[in-house]
Amino acid sequence: MKTNMEDTLETFRLDDRLARDSVLVTRLGLCELRLQNDNRWPWLVLVPQRDGVSELFDLTPLDQAVLTFETNLVASALKEITGATKINVGALGNIVRQLHVHIIARNEGDTCWPGPIWGHGTPVPYAAGEKESLMKKISGAL
Amino acid sequence: MKTNMEDTLETFRLDDRLARDSVLVTRLGLCELRLQNDNRWPWLVLVPQRDGVSELFDLTPLDQAVLTFETNLVASALKEITGATKINVGALGNIVRQLHVHIIARNEGDTCWPGPIWGHGTPVPYAAGEKESLMKKISGAL
Repeated sequence: MKTNMEDTLETFRLDDRLARDSVLVTRLGLCELRLQNDNRWPWLVLVPQRDGVSELFDLTPLDQAVLTFETNLVASALKEITGATKINVGALGNIVRQLHVHIIARNEGDTCWPGPIWGHGTPVPYAAGEKESLMKKISGAL
Repeated sequence: MKTNMEDTLETFRLDDRLARDSVLVTRLGLCELRLQNDNRWPWLVLVPQRDGVSELFDLTPLDQAVLTFETNLVASALKEITGATKINVGALGNIVRQLHVHIIARNEGDTCWPGPIWGHGTPVPYAAGEKESLMKKISGAL
């Protein structure tokens, strides 16, 4: 007999735009951890592997707690490896409705500092090898 | 003998800019719940009553869990009273370093939809009575 969790994971399908704009770093207990392919900022995205969830409060209380744990784990690791001035965390979802949490390393003087990064300009893809190097650092810090 | 929590609450001091731009709706277990004085969007801010905390992961694990609970409580209430298309939640802190969580009701066609609201244009203060009416609705829905 399958558990509820197995059912959910089997039916989870990543949003097409998230799939196109980011690459999988690793899977945590609840979320896919993905790296946005935009070298203007170290920019990670957590996507809870749950179908039909758009708002944070659509998650079960247990999933909310796990998402908080994973968000803080990843944010802390990103701060550690980048030495960023500030970590920005946001769940907006005005364009992509599948629940996802952005975790971004910000520094004074970076592109559009101190404003928010979402919707700003055009993504600058990583050069060959850069992305893999960052992904390795992130995985190592988790 | 004072508890640690009493010490913390006694020394908590709200950031000057947060105090200037928003009004207190109520105090929850951990946070001050405040309404931003900008009628372009229904825009709430949660401020954990803890001194010297800038990043989400600077909070103790217990405070992280309580903040998650209060964020979802408030976000859910805001969705209920506004019928918004999407709730935006964000902790940025590039300008104001005291940890605070924005919770904003967004609708298709609102000012700067579907972009993020932070740093956009000039605040439009509420007219007399509007703010109080919204604060009453929010308190009632919590």
